[in-house]
Amino acid sequence: MECVFCRILKGELPKHEVAGRERCVAFLDINPATRGHTLVVPKRHVERLSELSEDEAAEVLRLAGEVAEACVSRLGAAGVNFWINQGKVAGQVVPHLHLHVVPRYAEGEIRVEMHQKQAEQGELERVAQELRKGLE
Amino acid sequence: MECVFCRILKGELPKHEVAGRERCVAFLDINPATRGHTLVVPKRHVERLSELSEDEAAEVLRLAGEVAEACVSRLGAAGVNFWINQGKVAGQVVPHLHLHVVPRYAEGEIRVEMHQKQAEQGELERVAQELRKGLE
Repeated sequence: MECVFCRILKGELPKHEVAGRERCVAFLDINPATRGHTLVVPKRHVERLSELSEDEAAEVLRLAGEVAEACVSRLGAAGVNFWINQGKVAGQVVPHLHLHVVPRYAEGEIRVEMHQKQAEQGELERVAQELRKGLE
Repeated sequence: MECVFCRILKGELPKHEVAGRERCVAFLDINPATRGHTLVVPKRHVERLSELSEDEAAEVLRLAGEVAEACVSRLGAAGVNFWINQGKVAGQVVPHLHLHVVPRYAEGEIRVEMHQKQAEQGELERVAQELRKGLE
């Protein structure tokens, strides 16, 4: 079955479009977490962030910033969360990269429960070394 | 008091650097949510996503994608969450834009509680119209 976002982008399924650019489109999430919850989606079907070209990356992130400003100026948002989930374990449902723009109006609309705790210096340095090897 | 990320970028405070690019740097969060939790930070002090230039936006998002791949290949992550919090109500603590790269190894490490529910078509169209006005 074809990717649902590709079908939306082709016009085979409806969307509530917010803005279009050369390489990406912003449309509303039909199951919004808050009023104005928008998805910024590259037109090209890619699954992972590392697959975006420079031009696509610039357009996607800048359009997200513009949508956020519109949420502030037109909808009265006080802040905005931006997120991308990559991989099932991280919550990615549609395997076509999409950036969520979620306007925030008040505390407590979204609760993120995680356990951030200070890491030991030696452990941090080991992790940094490992990642540097992957980025050489 | 000067911005803590500007001080880190100047070398006045220590960091566990993962990668550096012309316009941004990736270093570990000292309070990681999971092993390898990294921050991608533009060198220029900006607070909001809409302030990033095209070049900065491209570099920040692409470096995040590269760090994510290193989390997969070197640390064994199965997925990755990327997020930016903008504004206090959205959880922004340091007022210098930063993109979190949070590798995920298993279900349940992070729980996001929110109430996504299907919106009524007329309401979606009103919201989309409002946002389009802000993006003209």
